[in-house]
Amino acid sequence: MGIIVQKYGGSSVATAEHIKAVAGRVARTRRSGVDLVVTVSAMGKTTDNLLRLASEVSENPSPREIDQLLATGEEQSVALLAMALSDRGIEAVSLTGPQAGMRTTGRYGSGIISEVRPDRIKKLLGEGKVVIVAGFQGMNSLGDVMTLGRGGSDTTAVALAAALGASRCEIYTDVDGVYTADPRIVPAARRIPEISTAEMAEMAWRGAKVMHPRAVELAALYGIEVHVKSSFEEGPGTVIRGGDVLEHLETRETVAGIVHDLDVSRITLRGIRTGPGTLSKVFEPLAGRGISVDVIVESANRAGISDVAFTVRRGDYEEARELAGEVASSLGGEAEGELGLAKVSVVGTGMLNRPGYAARMFASLGRAGIPIRMVSTSEIQVTCVIPVERVEEAVRSLHRDFELEERDV
Amino acid sequence: MGIIVQKYGGSSVATAEHIKAVAGRVARTRRSGVDLVVTVSAMGKTTDNLLRLASEVSENPSPREIDQLLATGEEQSVALLAMALSDRGIEAVSLTGPQAGMRTTGRYGSGIISEVRPDRIKKLLGEGKVVIVAGFQGMNSLGDVMTLGRGGSDTTAVALAAALGASRCEIYTDVDGVYTADPRIVPAARRIPEISTAEMAEMAWRGAKVMHPRAVELAALYGIEVHVKSSFEEGPGTVIRGGDVLEHLETRETVAGIVHDLDVSRITLRGIRTGPGTLSKVFEPLAGRGISVDVIVESANRAGISDVAFTVRRGDYEEARELAGEVASSLGGEAEGELGLAKVSVVGTGMLNRPGYAARMFASLGRAGIPIRMVSTSEIQVTCVIPVERVEEAVRSLHRDFELEERDV
Repeated sequence: MGIIVQKYGGSSVATAEHIKAVAGRVARTRRSGVDLVVTVSAMGKTTDNLLRLASEVSENPSPREIDQLLATGEEQSVALLAMALSDRGIEAVSLTGPQAGMRTTGRYGSGIISEVRPDRIKKLLGEGKVVIVAGFQGMNSLGDVMTLGRGGSDTTAVALAAALGASRCEIYTDVDGVYTADPRIVPAARRIPEISTAEMAEMAWRGAKVMHPRAVELAALYGIEVHVKSSFEEGPGTVIRGGDVLEHLETRETVAGIVHDLDVSRITLRGIRTGPGTLSKVFEPLAGRGISVDVIVESANRAGISDVAFTVRRGDYEEARELAGEVASSLGGEAEGELGLAKVSVVGTGMLNRPGYAARMFASLGRAGIPIRMVSTSEIQVTCVIPVERVEEAVRSLHRDFELEERDV
Repeated sequence: MGIIVQKYGGSSVATAEHIKAVAGRVARTRRSGVDLVVTVSAMGKTTDNLLRLASEVSENPSPREIDQLLATGEEQSVALLAMALSDRGIEAVSLTGPQAGMRTTGRYGSGIISEVRPDRIKKLLGEGKVVIVAGFQGMNSLGDVMTLGRGGSDTTAVALAAALGASRCEIYTDVDGVYTADPRIVPAARRIPEISTAEMAEMAWRGAKVMHPRAVELAALYGIEVHVKSSFEEGPGTVIRGGDVLEHLETRETVAGIVHDLDVSRITLRGIRTGPGTLSKVFEPLAGRGISVDVIVESANRAGISDVAFTVRRGDYEEARELAGEVASSLGGEAEGELGLAKVSVVGTGMLNRPGYAARMFASLGRAGIPIRMVSTSEIQVTCVIPVERVEEAVRSLHRDFELEERDV
């Protein structure tokens, strides 16, 4: 049956009882005859608690030390899961990211997997062991542990699946699949049985919490089939497959779902002189500091003078605001910022092929009286930046107006 | 001024506030111009909490996985201390045991430092950094982390001091030095300003908790001067030096202090056939499993038939009892065991040179009506095994009868 990689999130291993339940599920899968690699997040609120401790001892902790600290969370849960499996008669060995051959590059706190050297994992699988790998971490070229940023355990799982040639990657989480909208906001939201990696990647980038966007992209790149399932109940979950999931395209609406993101800040450079290379002057300093910029809007005021606005996460806001201020001054303008925003997105394959979806979205938000601050569109999504306090209303309006309740998903 | 190695125990880094206080002390030392390597235990009850979690997920956790789990405790405290130092303007870098070049051998859970490869530490010291090293751990030849057993952070500190040619090693703990007896039991107990490594090693082996016995032996072997001090208040503490601390020998009593150990179990092989090699038949299987045996008593019943008794720690009792049963059967005898014992020891340099100390000890315990179950003597100590519930009484009697209150230490 080949190799299966399973990933269990923090809520799935929050307590000793949860860990024993995961061990039971892993043991059942193992007994069905597959070779198993399992990657696990830190227990429940461990990462948050460690970050709180860090903020108590230091006002400005070094990213390297934060990574040294946070990596211990996953190291604890893998050791505990290995123990719980041994008690069930399953031979299991836990490995830290560095031990498992996960090599990383990039910035501390948002490391990128550069390579997986799976020799030790393969050797252990060959000995009949279940291998438990600490998610969310790897080793950089200095020999230091590095974390992949929040949600990185998903990426660990997909990268392992790719490196090991696994037949599939199973993501166990606290929900039973990917939904057409957040069911806490839209009670009529439905589970999506099958979705393309392209759509899933957009939904993840635009705020769907069920799977980390980089993990979805990696799955798309290596053609890994991903199953998202609940770790608390049995069920079919959502299958994420490469390509357009052709068998579904003809029978279903183009819109897959509505996603939202509550962590949005906007920075605007007003009245700057523009010309060739202006945008790179604005965005290169941000890229140099590793700040992710999302929605970007440029609007020409008058000849040679423009406003440029973009969104960043709250955690990057101060730094981005300062950099933008410097650039704006050098271009004869000024920078201003706005917190308390959110994004709401309509995601679906081939939206540009069936025009009118953006207009339909604006109309829906307009009827609800929700102001739109910025707009961004791509082939498979339309995103509007709106005030954060209007998000729930917006998601419900869009879910209704795009007839996602009605649809036979 | 050379290099100083400091070690802070778990109670010294129990909370964020404690860690900041340690950072303050480290920063002051650093500003005095010395190169500093600091080793730290896990925060407060972290190790106990992790062991409790392990026992909740598994009835019989694998020692390798226990070590993977426990190592995270020290990894957290070193990262937090490095952050707290940076906040005070002191450049600091945390290293795990493996990163610091601590190599180990032996059994998981009771690893022995086989080598220190201090290249990375030396490089960081050369860059002006304070280096914070996770105590209690190292890497074995498989590339796995291994713990040194309880109290092993002391050993880490002394081994680092030896490998770096440090001018001294400072052990910061929750008491302000080594005492003539446990002050919680004997209020009149006094701090010992200076003690020889030989005496300190005996006191540590016999139960003094202030420093781990293996660390004292290592300090003796490499001639490292160790200062035991309180991390909560300033004070001279206790200086542990190689040799006989000559300047003190002439003016003071021979007895340095009374120590006790509450973790004692006895196993007796009764009526076994003895001859050349019998004792090795008894003790080789125990050594093979890495079980430490302490007091050993052999008594001949009649020609060729003996009783052999020895003590082990509670954690090794079941395994040792079983092995002893097998050996006893093969030698025509039987094994029995007894839990709930303790040791009380009188320690001092050159006791055999001044006879009568053993007799004085037996007389003291006899007057208090305390039964002695086993006796062991060496050049610098006399140890009696007694019922655990009589320990406090025994320590108080001995401290009084050896006139330790009166003495000008």
